[in-house]
This record gives sequence, C-alpha cells and structure tokens, in this order.
Amino acid sequence: MNELFLKALAGEPVPRPPVWMMRQAGRYLPEYRALRDKYDFWTRVQTPELAAEITTQPIDRLGMDAAILFSDILTVPLALGFEVTLNEGEGPRLPAPIRTPEQALALRVPDVADRLHYVFEAVRATVARLEGRVPLIGFAGAPWTLFCYLIEGRGSKDFGMAKAFALKHPAATAHVLGVLADTTIHYLNQQIRAGARAVQVFDSWAGLLSPDDFDVLAKPWLARIAAGVEGAPVILFAKGSTYALDDLSRLPGVAALGLDWTVAPEQARAATGGRVSLQGNYDPSHLLTDPATIRREVRTMIDRFGTRGYIANLGHGITPGVPVANAQAFVEAVLSYGRG
Amino acid sequence: MNELFLKALAGEPVPRPPVWMMRQAGRYLPEYRALRDKYDFWTRVQTPELAAEITTQPIDRLGMDAAILFSDILTVPLALGFEVTLNEGEGPRLPAPIRTPEQALALRVPDVADRLHYVFEAVRATVARLEGRVPLIGFAGAPWTLFCYLIEGRGSKDFGMAKAFALKHPAATAHVLGVLADTTIHYLNQQIRAGARAVQVFDSWAGLLSPDDFDVLAKPWLARIAAGVEGAPVILFAKGSTYALDDLSRLPGVAALGLDWTVAPEQARAATGGRVSLQGNYDPSHLLTDPATIRREVRTMIDRFGTRGYIANLGHGITPGVPVANAQAFVEAVLSYGRG
Repeated sequence: MNELFLKALAGEPVPRPPVWMMRQAGRYLPEYRALRDKYDFWTRVQTPELAAEITTQPIDRLGMDAAILFSDILTVPLALGFEVTLNEGEGPRLPAPIRTPEQALALRVPDVADRLHYVFEAVRATVARLEGRVPLIGFAGAPWTLFCYLIEGRGSKDFGMAKAFALKHPAATAHVLGVLADTTIHYLNQQIRAGARAVQVFDSWAGLLSPDDFDVLAKPWLARIAAGVEGAPVILFAKGSTYALDDLSRLPGVAALGLDWTVAPEQARAATGGRVSLQGNYDPSHLLTDPATIRREVRTMIDRFGTRGYIANLGHGITPGVPVANAQAFVEAVLSYGRG
Repeated sequence: MNELFLKALAGEPVPRPPVWMMRQAGRYLPEYRALRDKYDFWTRVQTPELAAEITTQPIDRLGMDAAILFSDILTVPLALGFEVTLNEGEGPRLPAPIRTPEQALALRVPDVADRLHYVFEAVRATVARLEGRVPLIGFAGAPWTLFCYLIEGRGSKDFGMAKAFALKHPAATAHVLGVLADTTIHYLNQQIRAGARAVQVFDSWAGLLSPDDFDVLAKPWLARIAAGVEGAPVILFAKGSTYALDDLSRLPGVAALGLDWTVAPEQARAATGGRVSLQGNYDPSHLLTDPATIRREVRTMIDRFGTRGYIANLGHGITPGVPVANAQAFVEAVLSYGRG
C-alpha cells in the first residue's frame, strides 16, 4: 500500500507530501454525475457497493494518495432518529428539528452498529475495491456542526437559532453535544474496525463561534472524540477557527489539523509548533483558473508548508464546476513535487 | 455635541467608551418596522426625510453615542448604472451583473454628486434632525465587497463566480476595483461635506479571501480610500480578515478598525499595536439571551479592550429578532460602564 498519507500523519519523513481533496468523490467528475442521475442521494450513501464505487472513482482517475469514504455528516442525525432530506441544490433539511430543551434532553446515544451498518459495509466494500492501493479515510461531522443542523433544521448563513438555543439552554445543549460526541466515537471506531486507516472530523461551522464560545461549544467535544477514537490517527478540521489552532494542536489524540485558506502556512506552523501535522489549504475557487496557475501555486504552497508533517489538500470541498483537467493539475503538481 | 465617539476615534482619553451598533436603525425597532410597512426599501433610502427619521430612531430611543446613516452599500452600484432590486427577505439582486472582461473595462467613475444626491440630502436632513446631539457616521461598501455583487448579481455563500472572475481576469478586475475605490472616495467625501463626522467602509466579504488574495483584491483599494478621504476619520471593517489587522492598522488615514467576534480583544490589540482605535465586537447572536447576561458580557468586553481607543459595538449587524430590551441592555451597559 501507498503509505505516504499515514507517514505524513505520523510526522515521518516522506519523499513528497501526500495529496487528497475534500469532496474528491463529487460532482466535478462525470462518472459521479452519471451515478447521481441514476440514484438519489441517500441511495448512493446507503448502498455499500455504490458508495464504494463513488469513493474509488477519483483514485482510479486522478491517483490521490488517500480515498475518503463517500458518505455524509448527516448519517449521525439519521441514526439519532431524525428525518433528513437532501434534495440536490437546496441543501439538507430536517423537517422535525429540536425546538425545546425537553426534546434536546430526550436524546440518547443510538446503537450505531445497527443504525449505520450501511456505512461500515461501505467501508468494507471500499477497502476491497481499493485492493490495497491507498488508505481509506473515514469521517464524521463534529458535534457543534451537527447541533447546528439539529436545531436549525437546515443550512443557514449564521445559524442564529442554533447559537441562541445554545446560549439560552446551556445544559440541554451540553447534553446534545455529549450525545453527539459519544455517538461519533462509536461511529468512527466502527469505521476503523471496518478498515478505515484514519478519520477526519469536520467542524464546518466552527468559524461562526467566538473564541470564548468555541471553548464551550466546540473544543471540549472535539477533545472527547480525539481521546475516544482508537486505532487510527484523527484529523480535526475546524473551518474558520484559526484562533483555535494552538489549542487544538495540544489535544491528546490529534494527529493533524485541517486548515482553510484564510490562514497562511507560516502562521499555521507557528501556531501549532510542530505538535501536529497540517492538512490543506488551497482555495478551491483557484481550481477555476487554469492548470499552469494551479501547478505553480501548489508548488509554492508545498514550499511554504514544507514536506514533513504535511498533507496537500484544499481548504474546503472541491466545487462542482471545476474542470477535471484542473483537479488533475492540482493532484499531479503534488505527485511530481521535487521532481522538477 | 457628545464628542465621545470622535475622541475615541482620535485615541483621546474618555471617561467611558462610546457605543453604537451596526444596523442600529433596523428591523428590531417597532418604529422602523412601521415605516417599512409603508415604504419600500429604495423609497426609504432615497427619500431624505425618511432616511433621516430612520437614522435618528435608535438615538431617540436608546441613546447611542453616534448615529449611522440609514442607507445601503448598493447605492454605489446604482450610481454606476446597475439596476439593483431589494426584496425583503431574499437579499439584493442585480439583474444584469458583469459577465465579461469587456463589460468590466467599460465601467467609469460616475458623477456621484448627481447620481447620489439623495444620500447627501439625507445626511443634511439627519444632521438637522439630530440637533447636535451626536455625530453622524457616513459609510460605503468596500470595493471587493461591491465587486462580489457586481459579478455574482446576488448574495452567495462563497461568491465563487466573483473569485473566479477576479483570478481569470486580473486586469479587468483591477479596473473595476479602481473605479469602485475612486467612486467611493468621492462618495464619502461628499457625505463628509454634507455633515458626516466619520465614515466607515464595510468589506463584508473580505473573509472569503486568502491572505494573498486579500493583498491584491482588498487591501490596495481600502488603502486608496483611506488615503483619499478628507476631513473625517475613517473606520475600516474587513469582516473575517483577522489575519489583516496588522497590515490595515498601518495604512495611512485609518483611524479605527472594526472587528468581528472571532477575534479576542487581546489578540486584536496585539495585532494593531496601539496604532489605531478598535471597534466591536459583541456577537449579535448573544443579544438573543437576556439583559443580565448581556450587561455582564459587555462589561467584560470593555474590561478586555480597555476604555482608551475603543468603541463598543457589535461584531456584525443587529438581527431583526433581537428584543428591544436586549439592545437597550447592550447600550446601557456601555453608558454606565465604570459607574458600578
């Protein structure tokens, strides 16, 4: 197996950094769009052979150093008993979100092995399909980000309802975040037992929080997850929370931090002091330029991060309109780094 | 006149910090909603007596130390000849945005005095209506933020089209940003001549940019505006761009920097080294809690920023659902600071 990604997570020396792209199994790929036209979202997620096929598509075509399971962070709300609809183009909806502290306090950790069996089957099917080429990354949404959806019931510019609920009902909020964290630990550990070699936790809405609120609503639950995951390295991606890099780099069990593009490589290295590996942080909108620009910028990015303890990636998911040739230029610029 | 706000901008000693709130003339006030039910958005903006009445409503009721003109950053696109529709609840739309470099290069600085006369009349009407109680703040959108709307034609989560245009067509983009900056200088200087005692530039979408892109797409144009404004102090608010605080604090002509709530007071002071005053940065979602919580948090915020060179404010505009009593608690906590 190509061990570059795992070595970079462990901070071991590598000839060049590994590369993968957030949302690399996605709409920019024609072979993904073909499956999307045939099967709805939850069918793709919940049919192990389909999820495995989608997960390996970008590896087959572009040759990244790691695969990430095709799935969704809202599998955990599903397991908690929420209905979640995902219509293309309008984002996720929870028709019956949490509206009262009583509803929040009634939440219990579900039997993840039973409720999310299709995810673990998808992991096993993907590992088989990858035939030992590259490691598979499992993932989950962070408690704060999932909480945002559980309260708001849909995407939002500022998740004002979720923040207001959290501030007005701190005990009920801590209960929900704790249930989400514990569920996520079971969820990630089962993904690892099924064959995932690393896991990433996405705190997509962490950047909506002040540093003080982050310390209450995000960090403790990320810490609990990082400490509770067993058998594989943990990557935390708290998007928009540059202020938290120092703190997060000190949490036991964290192998790497994901970075968005609003932090300069030198600043991220200074904040994390070599305690963890770093992953990121190319602005995906730059993938809309041209292959020559992308290759030049990727080489500069690696020069600035350095090759050790670094995983080349985007600062957010790749967008549907990116030409495949541009995604390819991104990957190839990393694969060929140091070879002129 | 209450000179606290101007003294704080100048870094002079004050008995307590001044206070105002972004979007303080807005939907959380019943008297605003009454006018909103009678007149559409552009009528409210373009009728000087109405704009003046709306601008003074929060001063009459809550007693802030400064008024900010009721208007909109999209007056400048209007002056440039774009149609701009603003339907309540769905955000602004430009039905005919810029789609080609040729359209971008055709843009010219308009006769601001003629096209935006209603704004300057509104400034004069407001100054009359304020009867010398508090200073009036004029404002404009920053070039990058206006560019986002000119290209995208509407609000967006990531303004991917605007960023892609900027990266693909750097010369056409620089032309548009230059026209916007020059128009804005005329616009702000006319507001000052009409009676505004300070001006604020809102770069609401600066936080979408990487530090490198900020240096090309935002900073030079903010610098040009800060250097070109005459006769009143300039406040720059580059939301989400904590990484730029040091640089922005060194620009000639900048009196103060606005802060969102993702930066801790100590970090903002360290980054700006006493070179400018600071304004902000209470998370508006905390205004949804209760008066006692708000009073306590506001006192802590002032303790942390210090009273000198500081203007108490929110980190973003007040939202429509805030109870007036909570907004009042925010203002009164500042007014009574240091008096037990």
